[in-house]
Amino acid sequence: MSERNRPLLAITMGDPAGIGPEVVVGALSRRAVRSICRPLVIGDARVLRRAAAWQGRRFGRRLVASAEEAELHPDRVCLLDLANADPDSIPIGEVTPVAGRAAADYIERAFTLAQERRVAGIVTAPISKEALRLAGLAYAGHTEMLSALCGGCEVAMLLVHGEMRVSHVTTHVALREACDRVTRSRVLSVIRLTDQALQRLKLPRRRIAVSGLNPHAGESGLFGEEEIREIAPAVADARAQGLDVVGPLPPDTVFARQRGGEFDAVVAMAHDHGHIAVKTLGFERDAKGRMRTAGVNVTLGLPIIRTSVDHGTAFDIAGKGVADPTSMVEAILLAAQMAGE
Amino acid sequence: MSERNRPLLAITMGDPAGIGPEVVVGALSRRAVRSICRPLVIGDARVLRRAAAWQGRRFGRRLVASAEEAELHPDRVCLLDLANADPDSIPIGEVTPVAGRAAADYIERAFTLAQERRVAGIVTAPISKEALRLAGLAYAGHTEMLSALCGGCEVAMLLVHGEMRVSHVTTHVALREACDRVTRSRVLSVIRLTDQALQRLKLPRRRIAVSGLNPHAGESGLFGEEEIREIAPAVADARAQGLDVVGPLPPDTVFARQRGGEFDAVVAMAHDHGHIAVKTLGFERDAKGRMRTAGVNVTLGLPIIRTSVDHGTAFDIAGKGVADPTSMVEAILLAAQMAGE
Repeated sequence: MSERNRPLLAITMGDPAGIGPEVVVGALSRRAVRSICRPLVIGDARVLRRAAAWQGRRFGRRLVASAEEAELHPDRVCLLDLANADPDSIPIGEVTPVAGRAAADYIERAFTLAQERRVAGIVTAPISKEALRLAGLAYAGHTEMLSALCGGCEVAMLLVHGEMRVSHVTTHVALREACDRVTRSRVLSVIRLTDQALQRLKLPRRRIAVSGLNPHAGESGLFGEEEIREIAPAVADARAQGLDVVGPLPPDTVFARQRGGEFDAVVAMAHDHGHIAVKTLGFERDAKGRMRTAGVNVTLGLPIIRTSVDHGTAFDIAGKGVADPTSMVEAILLAAQMAGE
Repeated sequence: MSERNRPLLAITMGDPAGIGPEVVVGALSRRAVRSICRPLVIGDARVLRRAAAWQGRRFGRRLVASAEEAELHPDRVCLLDLANADPDSIPIGEVTPVAGRAAADYIERAFTLAQERRVAGIVTAPISKEALRLAGLAYAGHTEMLSALCGGCEVAMLLVHGEMRVSHVTTHVALREACDRVTRSRVLSVIRLTDQALQRLKLPRRRIAVSGLNPHAGESGLFGEEEIREIAPAVADARAQGLDVVGPLPPDTVFARQRGGEFDAVVAMAHDHGHIAVKTLGFERDAKGRMRTAGVNVTLGLPIIRTSVDHGTAFDIAGKGVADPTSMVEAILLAAQMAGE
């Protein structure tokens, strides 16, 4: 494959005390990943070396000082070593301010590279919200940090697992507050962001189903009025703009219908409508009986391409060499697909 | 199998204008169904004969006047013919008061037989809420009607699909109202009803996971307080009563964990938390590409055993001989399992 078709992707190592370094090393050992992108890891060389050793492998990488230098080594895994996470001062599996600060540095650097178009997109390993907080960074997570870095753009979370693609009108708020946040303008924004994402994914069709908020999508106002007051008007707005959208549809069958091939994406109103559908379906166990996820999280609305694993730092299994890199592999493949020509 | 182990089950035909008669006839043609129970259909002989003809089969049944008479014919499908649904006056696929009234008659008769212990349980085919209303019966559905028939007992809906078992603290109310209805006493009631159901199902273990209401189960109060104020205390109450219960757990992974075998049932707070998990997973297409469900709905809290299909009257395909009886088959098998010695 030509280099033109193998985009240069910045891959952040995540919290040095979590499983991020392990899933990065594990994912980059896969031929499928190397054949579809040129990886530029942003992290700490010592931490990555240690993570590789836990997995019984060597982390073969080329140290570079810039994305431009990485361009000179298209067949190597390149590493921008920020040298900010001394393994001796960061206990594995623990929340520390130094690890939080280091993780934030990787993200900031990756974001800048992407914004300056020096890389085609960024893929992020998990960070600890608590470690960020200890480092004095009051972000609820990656998404909020990236939204702040781009100056406060309106973002939405898209969860992808195979052919299941679900974007979310609301995410990390109480369910009562989620009900308040289901507004005509927000629903329309998320429909439009979803349509753009499907375009980026180069799908032949962009059929979007919009879920209701209430049981049976409100059953004509019997179980709630958000469908009538907010969601249906937003769907009408989107259709007037020429988008291929239907809804609001009952939440309990819209995901089954998507699974059956009727739609290319669903717009969900609440975090757990979308997350339950994707995660219940995406559940797998590996050969050792551990739960594994192949889900990918995409942030829509940023001026850059950003994908992420859909799991956390898993401090309880960090350092044991058992973390499963499937979600990271899928996150890299999806970013490459979105970034490709 | 001895008759002792083949319980006598009352099977209501449902709305005569919907697919109920077809799925009853279809299910009772299955050897697996006949080998595990003695069916006593409650309906109209003419409607059932017509439904069988649409499927290109004969409905071989023994007319009986009572459950006692059915006991005399353990190897036949027995039919209590209420002769209340003249096919000539009930247009197929339409909502009519006469069909609503007829459907209600079947349920009332079945309920009485079960309450008097003349049958071991009841299995219901779908009815039309709208037809009930036209007949002057203001019930939101089967469950509400059965709750009224037993004098207003506290009920809960259990949805079953294979090893997935999910009971619901709230069902047919707006999501905002569902938040209000998540109370310590209601959650405790549903945990206890769920435990009793697992006992009825004769499972070796009764490990119950209680889901949260909010994203990440509230993340320590950051995204809502229902977990702290209501759900966690209810779980503590249940544990103090000796039940094997954990929670509240994050809604987006609790169903995947159940799927992985960690729990025997999940108590969900909202209709669509539980329904999305079960229905997204339960989706299948038959050979002709139609969506099919194998889900079963069980009403907990009644003084009788009651299971039901988890689909509606499907007026759009009624009379075409294409309705899939899988959900009815599963509903009968589950009732037999619960009723068995």
